[in-house]
Amino acid sequence: MQIGAAYLEKEHGGRGVLLGGVPGVPPGNVCVIGGGIVGTNAAKIAVGMGAKVTLLDLNLNRLRELDDIFNGKLFTLASNAYNVERATAEADLVIGGVLIPGAAAPKIVTASMVSRMKRGAVIVDVAIDQGGCIETARPTTHSDPSYLVNGVVHYCVTNMPAAVPNTSTLALTNATFRYVVRLANMGASAALKADPGFAEGLNTFDGHLTYKAVAEAQQREFKSIEDIL
Amino acid sequence: MQIGAAYLEKEHGGRGVLLGGVPGVPPGNVCVIGGGIVGTNAAKIAVGMGAKVTLLDLNLNRLRELDDIFNGKLFTLASNAYNVERATAEADLVIGGVLIPGAAAPKIVTASMVSRMKRGAVIVDVAIDQGGCIETARPTTHSDPSYLVNGVVHYCVTNMPAAVPNTSTLALTNATFRYVVRLANMGASAALKADPGFAEGLNTFDGHLTYKAVAEAQQREFKSIEDIL
Amino acid sequence: MQIGAAYLEKEHGGRGVLLGGVPGVPPGNVCVIGGGIVGTNAAKIAVGMGAKVTLLDLNLNRLRELDDIFNGKLFTLASNAYNVERATAEADLVIGGVLIPGAAAPKIVTASMVSRMKRGAVIVDVAIDQGGCIETARPTTHSDPSYLVNGVVHYCVTNMPAAVPNTSTLALTNATFRYVVRLANMGASAALKADPGFAEGLNTFDGHLTYKAVAEAQQREFKSIEDIL
Amino acid sequence: MQIGAAYLEKEHGGRGVLLGGVPGVPPGNVCVIGGGIVGTNAAKIAVGMGAKVTLLDLNLNRLRELDDIFNGKLFTLASNAYNVERATAEADLVIGGVLIPGAAAPKIVTASMVSRMKRGAVIVDVAIDQGGCIETARPTTHSDPSYLVNGVVHYCVTNMPAAVPNTSTLALTNATFRYVVRLANMGASAALKADPGFAEGLNTFDGHLTYKAVAEAQQREFKSIEDIL
Amino acid sequence: MQIGAAYLEKEHGGRGVLLGGVPGVPPGNVCVIGGGIVGTNAAKIAVGMGAKVTLLDLNLNRLRELDDIFNGKLFTLASNAYNVERATAEADLVIGGVLIPGAAAPKIVTASMVSRMKRGAVIVDVAIDQGGCIETARPTTHSDPSYLVNGVVHYCVTNMPAAVPNTSTLALTNATFRYVVRLANMGASAALKADPGFAEGLNTFDGHLTYKAVAEAQQREFKSIEDIL
Amino acid sequence: MQIGAAYLEKEHGGRGVLLGGVPGVPPGNVCVIGGGIVGTNAAKIAVGMGAKVTLLDLNLNRLRELDDIFNGKLFTLASNAYNVERATAEADLVIGGVLIPGAAAPKIVTASMVSRMKRGAVIVDVAIDQGGCIETARPTTHSDPSYLVNGVVHYCVTNMPAAVPNTSTLALTNATFRYVVRLANMGASAALKADPGFAEGLNTFDGHLTYKAVAEAQQREFKSIEDIL
Repeated sequence: MQIGAAYLEKEHGGRGVLLGGVPGVPPGNVCVIGGGIVGTNAAKIAVGMGAKVTLLDLNLNRLRELDDIFNGKLFTLASNAYNVERATAEADLVIGGVLIPGAAAPKIVTASMVSRMKRGAVIVDVAIDQGGCIETARPTTHSDPSYLVNGVVHYCVTNMPAAVPNTSTLALTNATFRYVVRLANMGASAALKADPGFAEGLNTFDGHLTYKAVAEAQQREFKSIEDIL
Repeated sequence: MQIGAAYLEKEHGGRGVLLGGVPGVPPGNVCVIGGGIVGTNAAKIAVGMGAKVTLLDLNLNRLRELDDIFNGKLFTLASNAYNVERATAEADLVIGGVLIPGAAAPKIVTASMVSRMKRGAVIVDVAIDQGGCIETARPTTHSDPSYLVNGVVHYCVTNMPAAVPNTSTLALTNATFRYVVRLANMGASAALKADPGFAEGLNTFDGHLTYKAVAEAQQREFKSIEDIL
Repeated sequence: MQIGAAYLEKEHGGRGVLLGGVPGVPPGNVCVIGGGIVGTNAAKIAVGMGAKVTLLDLNLNRLRELDDIFNGKLFTLASNAYNVERATAEADLVIGGVLIPGAAAPKIVTASMVSRMKRGAVIVDVAIDQGGCIETARPTTHSDPSYLVNGVVHYCVTNMPAAVPNTSTLALTNATFRYVVRLANMGASAALKADPGFAEGLNTFDGHLTYKAVAEAQQREFKSIEDIL
Repeated sequence: MQIGAAYLEKEHGGRGVLLGGVPGVPPGNVCVIGGGIVGTNAAKIAVGMGAKVTLLDLNLNRLRELDDIFNGKLFTLASNAYNVERATAEADLVIGGVLIPGAAAPKIVTASMVSRMKRGAVIVDVAIDQGGCIETARPTTHSDPSYLVNGVVHYCVTNMPAAVPNTSTLALTNATFRYVVRLANMGASAALKADPGFAEGLNTFDGHLTYKAVAEAQQREFKSIEDIL
Repeated sequence: MQIGAAYLEKEHGGRGVLLGGVPGVPPGNVCVIGGGIVGTNAAKIAVGMGAKVTLLDLNLNRLRELDDIFNGKLFTLASNAYNVERATAEADLVIGGVLIPGAAAPKIVTASMVSRMKRGAVIVDVAIDQGGCIETARPTTHSDPSYLVNGVVHYCVTNMPAAVPNTSTLALTNATFRYVVRLANMGASAALKADPGFAEGLNTFDGHLTYKAVAEAQQREFKSIEDIL
Repeated sequence: MQIGAAYLEKEHGGRGVLLGGVPGVPPGNVCVIGGGIVGTNAAKIAVGMGAKVTLLDLNLNRLRELDDIFNGKLFTLASNAYNVERATAEADLVIGGVLIPGAAAPKIVTASMVSRMKRGAVIVDVAIDQGGCIETARPTTHSDPSYLVNGVVHYCVTNMPAAVPNTSTLALTNATFRYVVRLANMGASAALKADPGFAEGLNTFDGHLTYKAVAEAQQREFKSIEDIL
């Protein structure tokens, strides 16, 4: 979100809109695609900055939960081509946050939708590490982060958390520390046998692809870790 | 507000829109004209019901205060012809709440703006007791409360608080009780002399118009109560 | 909720109480029976309008969740005869929202409790399509929506969402669209076989009752769709 | 507030009620008399603890402001004998917070109202340093802080901020520091002449009572500091 | 929480800090150990009183939920020795709320961490009924509730809910009433057979320990109720 | 604020801290100097992004108002050298927002305080157009916006609103439009005579300095517009 806000500034090629607006001036319009962890956090910050935020997701139960969490500060829409097109056309900032672990992200926002967006609007595709959920997105780097398509600024840096290494290292350590300790104490094979949680996180072992979604996405042979061990 | 919500139902000729929406379906669009007590209370209830609310007022300081009070749940716009036209055109419900005590209300929403509103949208003009702040508004009664102009439902009942006599009687009594006591103890003339607050509330005395704004609006002679007593 | 608020107006036979009150005047007292989707949404709008809201449910875990969601703006009570009687006796508006899919709604509020309610109070029984969760409720229509029992206004229109067809059609479409597509592509029998979700939504097939709760409620023979296909 | 909450515990003679309640059990009922700084802060903490809070004040504009600040989490009532009696009779905890600087506090809650309160309810009279705004209140000390009247626990310790010296010293220093510096630099007489703010805070000078409200309350002669200097 | 707030007062040996602070004076620092029901409720009240609250828990998903519930008013930290030590060292009040049903609570806050806390800080160990989750905690009673270790006030009364019997009796009854009715109607053996929920709540039967966690904690023989019946 | 957040990213030389944190990882620490319009808006956005925000101001009444507006999501401190030094030393981001219209901004944060800040912390001095309220601040431009002092990133671009021209033009127009109309209709001299509001906004006229604060700050001769006309 803070990247999106920054790229809306004139200096970065954006429309020169302040997300939060000013009393008497309408705030920026943010469209968040996907109500998972990425999308929800983006929406939280956008709402916190004072923007008018619309979030789209396929899952109606998730929209209901988000409605409870945001308590009227967020507008939810069922995700379908009609709603996505209308919402992106009105947006100053689009956040692509649809990630399916291990699989290629579906292209929710098509090139034709992007062509109908406002000049100077900004797209941040957080799903770019899985190929992006916006058709016009292609991976960029922290040193050359953005490019234009139809006048729309695209920011699609891979490994975005690297921008805030202090916070992201702590977050990653919080999530992995207990696994690391067990791995160190037991060794890899024993740990994989003892704890199915490890097996779920394993991508390759002994030359075999052991993660089903990756194997399918890349059309390679899959072998389950149980069979190997 | 609850009147506006009710008239949006199909039965009453409205667009059949639920103000609060449902998770996944956009909420109703409410446009409140005026940020005084009437407009602010209408906006509070509209926000509370889950609608998307835009409030327009001339006074930027008031918009800033409203921004503090509503904390991101309300979009404020500076009131000018361009913004009023745009906001009413998008609205499902327009609340006219511009009242200038004693004087005729200014016509903020013109007939041409009303003609550009959605079919089945609803207008509630709370300023109708002062002539209304919407050009197409004319006074109606609780028994025949609404009419259509260009397919837009108009609800312009005079003395609206009469619909909830229980609450409005208590509210009126809270505000007037201390004055009544003083009036009863001192008599009218003495009370008017002793307390300039009384004089401010006086409309006629001894056959003279003693309220300046009313005298000007009706182009009659004004005589100050100080001069009379 | 907006129906309940409207029927509290004097014109509709109610007590003439404004749900949100006015600073210095107590707000209306709303009692919501049931903490499912219907009850929670009613409570949200009632809280948003500024009413004092009490919600009763049997499930303590659900009350805990509601406490988290409403964050002190709602008072929860464990549902039992003592609490229901006390809460309805104090209420200006009672919303009956206990629905058990396919089965007759249990009668939570008895006729004797209704007889102890305030004159001019309003009951809206949203469960009326399943027979109602309030003993004195009987189905009414949008053209003749309300009646009095012991001075208490009853609004028990079947198919209430029909009042806001615009919103309810979108909501229904959001929920059903994907099923419709699959049905159109596969045909009924194939779709029912392929997806147990379809089977769960089926009421009758080939002359047989295939929904267990309905069969039990109506004491007819039940036949599972698996057996038929 | 935290004192009031503590005294509601059984150990201290109170009703054994937890102010915040538990999901499914009604919270405690707190009645705050007065919407000035003392009352508002008490109400904030009571609301924060999850209690059901009613605040009474004479000033309708102040009630309107409090309504904006508390945003539906507080019920405001116009202060009059009828409302005070009803509110205290229902309360588990009454906070007396009506202070008129320099003058004796008016007795808002009469002994007869106290006699109608619940057994084990708690009264905390913060106005006790000005004589108390509750008729049955008499000053107590931190070592013997409470007593019973009609089964109602009274906590009326003078100089209550002394319980949290750390916080109250900082608060006092924040408010007085700039005056102290000026006093040290200029001397008393020069400072009193140069800054009318000093004069307003002066109680006695050279043997004379220089604070009007105190002089009136104690029926002694008043001499303005301007006349003395 | 209200106990913790009270013990921070000078009278009770605490630091004399008001949890909510005063505008311009920093609020008290509260550290809550554990994000279950006990910890979450303590955090809610602490946040409501205006304190600066940090909550630690092992479970990152739970921290995410709490983040949604508290909406920026609470700081969450992953629970590990480094974070616990840092958070307790800065705290004015530590609430120990880590309970594992039936088992001894783990010692999250060590004696060495307590020795680095501020003089006059307060510890309330709600887990004391399971042995306490703070190493320096030992059971006390309502009549002699607190003691000092390294200048830190310890409040570790067993059966704390007894302080508010009115509320806790209702809460307990809400949770148990339906079981009691079934027990009365069916008798113990039949009820235990018919409803596995009963069996889960059973500690001893016919001289045997039937609760696994207790049996393990006390190293006694365990016999399942299914085997006995 | 969004500039400050961006400069905390590693790419821009900052500490690599995400202002909002992540559940389980502490958020960034923001220190806002000044509680006027600039500081309050910065604080709102910082709070909205999930940061831990401390705001310092001299005016205790303003701190009280901010406390009401932010409702526990902001920590206020009385502004004095001790508090400023402590707050900046802990901050990841310092926003300087002390502006006195027309006059040079006072240096609230001294160079020695900056030297005690964390490496990689960020300072944004919004008061730079009046000389800055941070001693180490010197004006920069949008093309070369930042520099380091003691490892602390300084962003002190003059005319910051130019980054979002769309929003700032509308905001400026809202505030000035009515004056422009009157100026166009009446001419400069007549408008200045008719409306003292114009005179207050005038800086120079006919070769004279007509704004007192500017005249004093620059030690030039002041002539009031009344005398000139």
